[in-house]
Amino acid sequence: MKKIVVMGGGTGNFTVLRGLKNFNVALSAIVSMADDGGSTGVLRDDLGVLPPGDVRQCLVALSNSSKLLRSVMNYRFEQGGLGGHSFGNLLLSALEKVTGSFEKAVEEVGRILYIKGKVIPITTHQVRLKMILKDRTLLEGEGKIYLSDQIDRGYSSIFLEPYPKPNPHAIEEIMNADLVVIGPGGLHTSIIPNLLVKGVSQALIETRATIVYVSNLMNRRGQTTGFKVSDYHAEVMRYIGKDIFDFILVNNQIPPKELIEKYMEEGEIVKNDITCSRVISAPLLGGLGVKKKGDILMQRNLIRHNSERVAQEIMKIVDCI
Amino acid sequence: MKKIVVMGGGTGNFTVLRGLKNFNVALSAIVSMADDGGSTGVLRDDLGVLPPGDVRQCLVALSNSSKLLRSVMNYRFEQGGLGGHSFGNLLLSALEKVTGSFEKAVEEVGRILYIKGKVIPITTHQVRLKMILKDRTLLEGEGKIYLSDQIDRGYSSIFLEPYPKPNPHAIEEIMNADLVVIGPGGLHTSIIPNLLVKGVSQALIETRATIVYVSNLMNRRGQTTGFKVSDYHAEVMRYIGKDIFDFILVNNQIPPKELIEKYMEEGEIVKNDITCSRVISAPLLGGLGVKKKGDILMQRNLIRHNSERVAQEIMKIVDCI
Repeated sequence: MKKIVVMGGGTGNFTVLRGLKNFNVALSAIVSMADDGGSTGVLRDDLGVLPPGDVRQCLVALSNSSKLLRSVMNYRFEQGGLGGHSFGNLLLSALEKVTGSFEKAVEEVGRILYIKGKVIPITTHQVRLKMILKDRTLLEGEGKIYLSDQIDRGYSSIFLEPYPKPNPHAIEEIMNADLVVIGPGGLHTSIIPNLLVKGVSQALIETRATIVYVSNLMNRRGQTTGFKVSDYHAEVMRYIGKDIFDFILVNNQIPPKELIEKYMEEGEIVKNDITCSRVISAPLLGGLGVKKKGDILMQRNLIRHNSERVAQEIMKIVDCI
Repeated sequence: MKKIVVMGGGTGNFTVLRGLKNFNVALSAIVSMADDGGSTGVLRDDLGVLPPGDVRQCLVALSNSSKLLRSVMNYRFEQGGLGGHSFGNLLLSALEKVTGSFEKAVEEVGRILYIKGKVIPITTHQVRLKMILKDRTLLEGEGKIYLSDQIDRGYSSIFLEPYPKPNPHAIEEIMNADLVVIGPGGLHTSIIPNLLVKGVSQALIETRATIVYVSNLMNRRGQTTGFKVSDYHAEVMRYIGKDIFDFILVNNQIPPKELIEKYMEEGEIVKNDITCSRVISAPLLGGLGVKKKGDILMQRNLIRHNSERVAQEIMKIVDCI
């Protein structure tokens, strides 16, 4: 059975994992530990735990448990002192407190959720993501960086503090993988934070795995304004130190005009400007889903990857290796 | 397989269930829904959920899951907005919110914890326990009643508001039981609240089950000061309306003098003043346990029932029916 490692953090990871879960492969999700926004940030500050949010999403993506258990993992309390906390985050934090180990907590939740595969934090050290902009402004924390609209004016440095040792299990998974998928996901907040952990870029260079970069669909205004696929590729490569990508998976489907207009505020579509043979260009968009909110059926007007399509394209690569 | 129903709430229930779990019987825990103190009270107020605390304790008592899962269910967050909340309470409340049903939430947690038997709330209506003292003071809520030191001066009324319909599953369990165990537990806060639910006393009168009352070990100062076993028996009988008890299980073991002195502030030992043949008198005390707190081994100087001994005495009754 082929071993696939999916590396990132946040919704991008979730999409790829959910799609690949249905294929006969050994899956590992390697997750960035830089998140410090929302419920995760409060838990880090109040309890001193490692950030549970992204890990929770990966666990849910890989879960074979009942729909109810998956729903409760993502359930957010609305009122009182619990307001804003996702239940799954509380579960991971309570287990970390009881076991004294975030990795054990993740394993235990994996068992409860009957996950297919493994979820592995890239590091088990407490780190903060920081960025120094060209005008010397210091952005402290992934949450602040995520919200900044000044990043596209240039930054001089992005780093994790303190500079963390990797989780040896993460390095082991990369070294033993047949395929590594990087992206999609927030460039500075989900993808690069993995590459800032000691030894991770080196492992990506040394592994014999085939490596795929899945490009984002949309630029984020103020962060990656005007980025083309080559810009994403160059930025990721800069932190790895070498062009390790065997394939670059890009979407070639144009979303409906209304959706593009709706997204105008947030950013514009990522255009592909690479034409060499390692680029795999395919229709990867999710259909206009229908979501039930209360009694009203709502159209989910989101420009998102379709997890099945992304997984199918990745599996075509796996079939060749 | 004989069907045993254990009725109460709080630590008393926990002890009996944990002991009986190791025998080949079908167990059901029927749990009072009056709790409104601590974490449970905050969740009721903030989220409008049913009280999870006592149910959680019963679920843990019946659990066959890993020690880790049982520990995390009872884990209490210490800091921040989560401070004081037991994790298991949050799980039950989140599941109640997601499913819209407290009973479904209890079932789901039962599955996660691989419980032996069933845990059944006595009612699924939102109720508050209230007590009117002889001097007309109104004590609102189980938490307030629990803390009062005026109850032994007499009370004119104790009731649930609004007067709740029973959970039909609870009535069914009582009617189908071979044995019903009532107590030990807080007289006004754990035992009587079950009897205040519509139809419960009637079911206890009508069932063909053998009924056992397990007497408390200690009186609570200001609540049951000077109570003897006959006083407990009389008080419980008053709410049922009939003497339904086939057996009364009492402890005949005297705790070490130091322990009795240590408890002087809280209350004194319950003396047995019933001698008729339905009284089963046996040594039921727990040994001086050793508990690890950090690196220090601590003696648990508590006057508590030994769950194995209580269960053994109950099983001697079961063997005759």
